[in-house]
Amino acid sequence: MTTTFAFGLGLSRHSASGAMLDCYFPRPLLNPRGGLLDVLSELSPGTQEVTSDQALAIDHAYGGGLLPTSSPSSKGNLVAVKLDTDDAIDSTAEAYLKLHLLSHRLCLPNSLNLDGIFAHLPNVAWTSAGPVAIDELTDAISQAHLEGNQLEVFAVDKFPKMVNYVVPTGVRIADASRIRLGAYLGEGTTVMHEGFINFNAGALGPNMVEGRISQGVTLGAGTDLGGSASTMGTLSGGGNITISIGENCLIGANAGTGIPLGDRCTIEAGLYITAGMNIQLVDENGESLGKVKARELAGKSDMLFIRDSQAGNILCRTNRQAIELNELLHQHN
Amino acid sequence: MTTTFAFGLGLSRHSASGAMLDCYFPRPLLNPRGGLLDVLSELSPGTQEVTSDQALAIDHAYGGGLLPTSSPSSKGNLVAVKLDTDDAIDSTAEAYLKLHLLSHRLCLPNSLNLDGIFAHLPNVAWTSAGPVAIDELTDAISQAHLEGNQLEVFAVDKFPKMVNYVVPTGVRIADASRIRLGAYLGEGTTVMHEGFINFNAGALGPNMVEGRISQGVTLGAGTDLGGSASTMGTLSGGGNITISIGENCLIGANAGTGIPLGDRCTIEAGLYITAGMNIQLVDENGESLGKVKARELAGKSDMLFIRDSQAGNILCRTNRQAIELNELLHQHN
Amino acid sequence: MTTTFAFGLGLSRHSASGAMLDCYFPRPLLNPRGGLLDVLSELSPGTQEVTSDQALAIDHAYGGGLLPTSSPSSKGNLVAVKLDTDDAIDSTAEAYLKLHLLSHRLCLPNSLNLDGIFAHLPNVAWTSAGPVAIDELTDAISQAHLEGNQLEVFAVDKFPKMVNYVVPTGVRIADASRIRLGAYLGEGTTVMHEGFINFNAGALGPNMVEGRISQGVTLGAGTDLGGSASTMGTLSGGGNITISIGENCLIGANAGTGIPLGDRCTIEAGLYITAGMNIQLVDENGESLGKVKARELAGKSDMLFIRDSQAGNILCRTNRQAIELNELLHQHN
Repeated sequence: MTTTFAFGLGLSRHSASGAMLDCYFPRPLLNPRGGLLDVLSELSPGTQEVTSDQALAIDHAYGGGLLPTSSPSSKGNLVAVKLDTDDAIDSTAEAYLKLHLLSHRLCLPNSLNLDGIFAHLPNVAWTSAGPVAIDELTDAISQAHLEGNQLEVFAVDKFPKMVNYVVPTGVRIADASRIRLGAYLGEGTTVMHEGFINFNAGALGPNMVEGRISQGVTLGAGTDLGGSASTMGTLSGGGNITISIGENCLIGANAGTGIPLGDRCTIEAGLYITAGMNIQLVDENGESLGKVKARELAGKSDMLFIRDSQAGNILCRTNRQAIELNELLHQHN
Repeated sequence: MTTTFAFGLGLSRHSASGAMLDCYFPRPLLNPRGGLLDVLSELSPGTQEVTSDQALAIDHAYGGGLLPTSSPSSKGNLVAVKLDTDDAIDSTAEAYLKLHLLSHRLCLPNSLNLDGIFAHLPNVAWTSAGPVAIDELTDAISQAHLEGNQLEVFAVDKFPKMVNYVVPTGVRIADASRIRLGAYLGEGTTVMHEGFINFNAGALGPNMVEGRISQGVTLGAGTDLGGSASTMGTLSGGGNITISIGENCLIGANAGTGIPLGDRCTIEAGLYITAGMNIQLVDENGESLGKVKARELAGKSDMLFIRDSQAGNILCRTNRQAIELNELLHQHN
Repeated sequence: MTTTFAFGLGLSRHSASGAMLDCYFPRPLLNPRGGLLDVLSELSPGTQEVTSDQALAIDHAYGGGLLPTSSPSSKGNLVAVKLDTDDAIDSTAEAYLKLHLLSHRLCLPNSLNLDGIFAHLPNVAWTSAGPVAIDELTDAISQAHLEGNQLEVFAVDKFPKMVNYVVPTGVRIADASRIRLGAYLGEGTTVMHEGFINFNAGALGPNMVEGRISQGVTLGAGTDLGGSASTMGTLSGGGNITISIGENCLIGANAGTGIPLGDRCTIEAGLYITAGMNIQLVDENGESLGKVKARELAGKSDMLFIRDSQAGNILCRTNRQAIELNELLHQHN
């Protein structure tokens, strides 16, 4: 019996010259099962336009809900994307399907093959009149000024904002322009105005996010990311380590981290920990255990990073014993 | 004779299922006086729907101006909120009235009883089509995609942005999405793109705000809050001290404070002062007076906080004499 | 033969009382030449309304393209601005023309006379219904609530956002509200959500901009400005030095600079360099050359600024020899 990795029935929008600009999937499916598979077996792998009748047949086989209504209008194209396996992205619609899977909480960040996503996402002007192709934008702006209409251009980007496509349950988002489609927001997550979440990144929830979650970065349950706090990404300048922050951590305002953290870690406000920093390690009794590179502490739990405001050096205090710390630090050596 | 703490005649919007989503008060009143009190005495305390005729009678008794026009349309419900005393918030309309009082500069931050505000403000999707109830949002997004309309979702939050309700005189606001209803912006305040002002927080004016003013925090006249500068709030991680910053202070870019400051204080760019930090105190002659905890300096004036970029320690320089400083520091002991 | 410094044919919008709120120039011209000059010689210097016929004649003399279409509608006023020399700004339309010249990449930041720009730009509410005069805004908000329409107020500011007027080729802009008209974005520039570019400031391209480019500041090719990184401006608190950052620099996340930098410089994440800081200078062999004020290093290349995370002092490491460094530092003495 065949299996399908993912499937989506989408509504796409196109430029005047016919290029796909975006694709909206009301209900993307991961590993679809049951009677739907029989209908899907008639589709080609990958992306294809479908007729209203085909779309209704698929929706019917699923039991309803894949389409916004039972009578899809003729505005916008109907597109079916069937991915038998999680391969590199091969079309704009596939890219959108994978971004939907993430924001619908069907896949965790870093669990999908997103190779090719930049190549297959067109750069689009996101406006109050919907998506506009870049090479048609100047004319659209001119026309609006000429007619006395207001064409508001919100962004010129490959990624749209999440909430125009998906609003997961149980979240608050104070400034929606700062969350890209493809972000993962777990139940109970609040993103304040200064918060930012890139695609393929997320807060597993519940979280308070007032800082920036870079591509590939995740926050565990109960972790607070303070105002303007930075998590170093891998796309620009952050090296190859994917940062994750565990549960019940507190990253202070204007702080940052270039190393992954385990659970119950704190970085004081205004302190940026980079992987190459020398850190003074202090055990539960306040005894110094000497200096380590921050990257040696990557992923450990129960760490408190502070700067000694008089000696000027950076400390990591833990509630662990010296002998335990030594083992932790040398387990990878 | 009865007195009334506050009154407002509002236009409310509702979900399809009838829940109030927001309430707009063109002219909220603090301590209304005169003939209006007689008319108000006929209203019940708290929130109530009123008819057009009732609304017009109230507006007439006030002398006009409580309603947008003399003939209110039937779109939107007319709501009267009469608060005899400043009690805990008991309805959505009451919450909106108090937020309006703050943004209309009728009440200073921290002067109103806001207990219950989170419980009585529904989480709402703020869209280009107006407020939408969260449980009706997915359908609205789907419908818009289906019809080829653009539904722009700006935020999913309990608080709307201020300028859709109130624009106080003499201000500039470069990115309106970063100022919540309930913010207090004094005359002469400019909030740049990186500036943020929460509800029940404010710049008393004139101010240049390029950083974040957390809930409960206020800036005095002439104070500049630099780009991305942080003021520690009490809602998350900031403890119980309410931060205020006095007049003619300069908080540098990417700096921050976890203690209140008096007048004419400066924090250099990039330096975050937390309450528990040890600070080297230096008098007007450059003589060191030893170390104090930053929280001992809370609320004092004429302080310059810098980091010695070679010794690595944090200094507070003042233009006061040693003996005066000693008195200041020990006056609460 | 006469010459003209700049010319533009614009569409302006006005308040109910007739004040100009903005002016859109589809194709502004620097140093117009050829047959156009003859037609322009019939215009007065400065700003003037023109008729449709006049506008078409000018457009025809240019060869077409100055107007959005060959048949300008009667919505909006047609304005011609002819500047014979680059003098101080004398009208709202002139201010808009100069801002267009910058965003159209016809002039580099700091190359135009912008004196008078604040005086001639009215403070305007930028809304989903177009620009609204400040003194007409409260009524517009009330009317919208009354009619059940959503009037979205995006900003209350003298400067509009760039992309509603100009979208230069080859750029991505994740949050358009953070780039003012008058910003210069070179080919290949990406501005992420946390990026900000003021008027008369820019990224010469290609650049990755995740931080704030203050008025007057420029980034050279290949330079990355990290998340929330700050460049000190001259408008508020930054003194008189205009900051520029050369090519192939990396300013880390949450870092900042108060001095200009040459090429191939790095500031580590979280470190703010201010002009008055003492810096430990280290040559290519790791030998210390003693302390210098940061401002003595202004504009030099191949510098790496880091904080010694144990000693607490700030270092500048270079790949130059001691003797060369000494010459560099003392060449201005």
